[in-house]
Amino acid sequence: MSARITPQTPALQALRMRLHAQHQPVVLMRTDCHVCRAEGLAPRSQVLIIAGDRTVQALLYQIDSDLLKAGQIALSEAAWDALDIHEGDFVQVRHPPMLESLSAVRARIHGHRLQTTELQAIVRDVVDGRYTDVALSAFLTATAVLPLDMQETIHLTRAMVDVGDRLQWQAQIVVDKHCVGGLPGNRTTPLVVAIAAANGLVMPKTSSRAITSPAGTADTMETLAPVDLDLDTLRKVVEKEGGCVAWGGAMHLSPADDIFVRIERELDIDTQGQLIASVLSKKIAAGATHIVIDIPVGPTAKVRSRETAEHLAHHLSEVAASFGLVLRCLFTDGNQPVGRGIGPALEARDVLAVLRNEADAPQDLCDRVALVAGAVLELGGVAKEGEGFRLAHETISSGRAWEKFQRICAAQGGFREPPQALYVEPLLATTSGRAVHIDNRKLSRLAKLAGAPESPAAGIQLQVHLGDEITRGQPLMFLHTQTSGEMAYALAYVQDIGDIVKIDP
Amino acid sequence: MSARITPQTPALQALRMRLHAQHQPVVLMRTDCHVCRAEGLAPRSQVLIIAGDRTVQALLYQIDSDLLKAGQIALSEAAWDALDIHEGDFVQVRHPPMLESLSAVRARIHGHRLQTTELQAIVRDVVDGRYTDVALSAFLTATAVLPLDMQETIHLTRAMVDVGDRLQWQAQIVVDKHCVGGLPGNRTTPLVVAIAAANGLVMPKTSSRAITSPAGTADTMETLAPVDLDLDTLRKVVEKEGGCVAWGGAMHLSPADDIFVRIERELDIDTQGQLIASVLSKKIAAGATHIVIDIPVGPTAKVRSRETAEHLAHHLSEVAASFGLVLRCLFTDGNQPVGRGIGPALEARDVLAVLRNEADAPQDLCDRVALVAGAVLELGGVAKEGEGFRLAHETISSGRAWEKFQRICAAQGGFREPPQALYVEPLLATTSGRAVHIDNRKLSRLAKLAGAPESPAAGIQLQVHLGDEITRGQPLMFLHTQTSGEMAYALAYVQDIGDIVKIDP
Repeated sequence: MSARITPQTPALQALRMRLHAQHQPVVLMRTDCHVCRAEGLAPRSQVLIIAGDRTVQALLYQIDSDLLKAGQIALSEAAWDALDIHEGDFVQVRHPPMLESLSAVRARIHGHRLQTTELQAIVRDVVDGRYTDVALSAFLTATAVLPLDMQETIHLTRAMVDVGDRLQWQAQIVVDKHCVGGLPGNRTTPLVVAIAAANGLVMPKTSSRAITSPAGTADTMETLAPVDLDLDTLRKVVEKEGGCVAWGGAMHLSPADDIFVRIERELDIDTQGQLIASVLSKKIAAGATHIVIDIPVGPTAKVRSRETAEHLAHHLSEVAASFGLVLRCLFTDGNQPVGRGIGPALEARDVLAVLRNEADAPQDLCDRVALVAGAVLELGGVAKEGEGFRLAHETISSGRAWEKFQRICAAQGGFREPPQALYVEPLLATTSGRAVHIDNRKLSRLAKLAGAPESPAAGIQLQVHLGDEITRGQPLMFLHTQTSGEMAYALAYVQDIGDIVKIDP
Repeated sequence: MSARITPQTPALQALRMRLHAQHQPVVLMRTDCHVCRAEGLAPRSQVLIIAGDRTVQALLYQIDSDLLKAGQIALSEAAWDALDIHEGDFVQVRHPPMLESLSAVRARIHGHRLQTTELQAIVRDVVDGRYTDVALSAFLTATAVLPLDMQETIHLTRAMVDVGDRLQWQAQIVVDKHCVGGLPGNRTTPLVVAIAAANGLVMPKTSSRAITSPAGTADTMETLAPVDLDLDTLRKVVEKEGGCVAWGGAMHLSPADDIFVRIERELDIDTQGQLIASVLSKKIAAGATHIVIDIPVGPTAKVRSRETAEHLAHHLSEVAASFGLVLRCLFTDGNQPVGRGIGPALEARDVLAVLRNEADAPQDLCDRVALVAGAVLELGGVAKEGEGFRLAHETISSGRAWEKFQRICAAQGGFREPPQALYVEPLLATTSGRAVHIDNRKLSRLAKLAGAPESPAAGIQLQVHLGDEITRGQPLMFLHTQTSGEMAYALAYVQDIGDIVKIDP
């Protein structure tokens, strides 16, 4: 954003208040500030903050206290970073320019389809931080009530790609994978990358950190190797080893997606068109040409029926085709957690157990990896149709996946063993019988109370699967924490919420 | 809202930070706070703050500074007031309970019509402050894309009435009026009340203060008499004089409406069903039985065509009928500002000039008042059909309206003359010709820069109407301010923005 500074806009001295509000820039001004008075600024106004040729749109609160002196303005971290200023610098404050693209959102609310230029303007303004929560929610709700049609989905996908950076690779075929509506512990990505790269494919994977879950793929991988790679390093790792598992957050690939996802998550809506634009814009920006989409289907998964899954797969393929992408969808079992660990290090241990062919490696994770990696191998042309699953298993059992994985970690900055928590306590079964239900929501919450993902070693190690025969007194899971306080708090929570694993006599 | 406090929820010491965020409760906690860690609270989380048997849902920010000591939490004014606590009191913080009614919003997004119990739950949660901007915007957008049908409109209206207080009156007939999409300076309400009451009708009018405009009816009336009446005083004024013009803000009449209006204004959407529920819920809660709706129609008004106006009128009447209300709609000229003043005191001067039959009273305001008041008189049964306009004019010209108005002001706490600004400067025409366009948005903005409504005397006095012949050097308007700084700032703005009144040679 840029704005003309007129000489009569008075300046205020910037104070860094070390306020964290995620992506949201926030400023505090005195209620009696002359600029507020002159500009007619009220609390919760949107304001434009100007420092040299940089601007940022922020949410204004007002304060009646000596925390701020006359002529000062306090800035949150997001505002501070966006303006790139120093303590004591002067900034100017004014009304933000009209949000022109909101008229397209309004037209969409009234039933008009959006054209490519309108979607580009909307996505541009979203990424520039000019959309409030109200405006974001209106756009996403409007395109959910009257769903995005195929043309709009394609336009939106392109707009989301265009507004960010785009990686380019020498290879003709660049593979990628995505799981729609992840299951707890479903940490296949590092394994699939190792298998694909071990078989000569190029798979430059960028992943996210946890936002509301106990661990994102990037958090898990970070317990095994550095993931915060700059673009140059990422390129070198991929050129050398064929694959990487890096944190995508700093890469500015389809940056609108992260903003949309936050709103969709709060509303718990995720319509087909929005999902397709979200997934494919990230993959296209990362330079993928061949993509496997894992769609877990189950009564508590995001996709609940085979019919919905097939409909989604059909539309994904069509939009992908319009960008020249090759795409294959897998319909997988979405009924229960995958693997044993929940939390960065504990999930990483599952990954290592599979790679190292340990006797007690979680078989469900191993099979799911072979399914997804097998499809990647077939799509990438290094396995014949129907032979991918076997080749993926063979890549693991031969140790080639483990070797490649260590090389990738070394290239990313060095392999390391995941940390071990200081405190470990079992949760014991209070009755005997069969495990008939596992509450994924409570599991996630408990893992977070234990400290995941901020404490990478913290989390849960599940000891049972659905259908298992349980004996009273047997450990259902182990809680891992870094402090005794967190352990106490997590155990108190367990007392409070009732069964996480339901056992029928 | 209430919540169970479990013993393991640790308490934090409350610090009042005198932060103004309008209705939005905000709290600040240290990033390293043990409660944030234990509860897994991130910046921009929604949190439930508990003090005794009171709770409030607030928006959390985190801070890395010594502004807060360990074990402290800072609260905004809205949070502080809602909890009714004192400096140093202890509060508890936890995740808010699940927002169950959001599933009805989600169902509405997916095309399901809402039943009365669902709308009641939504409106209840909205008034309890449990809806974030994201959720509010989703609800209002969903009911705009697929508009509320007649049944939903009736259910929503009833839910909005039920969640607030409701005034009751002895009189069989209680009249009220409303203007859809006000025009600048269209300050008919105090005049209509005086005329209705002078003719024996009961008209207990509650009005709003300005939110984004230079003056609300309550702001204007406040320059003439106290408007911040409690329910007892309001009742006594109406019992004695038949009418009042009070501020409705403290009365808790259809409180959801104020929350919805803020979002609708930001999005600039206001669909028919939402408008009907908004208007009628306020009137029903205020105890009205007979209502006149003024619908200005014009190219820049909210309602742009006669056809839309008739459609709206039809639906308003049907919903009103289902609540046993008698309703009449007027279609009026929505092309230009009404009267001369913009700003509380300057609009009040227009009102007084009409009441006092001054020679230079604005004729357009006078005629519009007679039109609306005439309809009120006819609807209320004190004028025959077709004779209301004449009786309204007669009530003004005979001085009866002025006498009644003074009595109402006395009952509200005493009549006073509106204040006069310290600084007055003319804006002169720079060319000669005919006034062909007046920019209402720029006028409003300029009046606010001059200090309205915070400085009641500040604002604009327009000296021209559309179609007037203008001579170079003639005053187009006068700027009124309380400080020389505001005058300088307003004049600089005028230089910056170009013509407010467009003059064609």
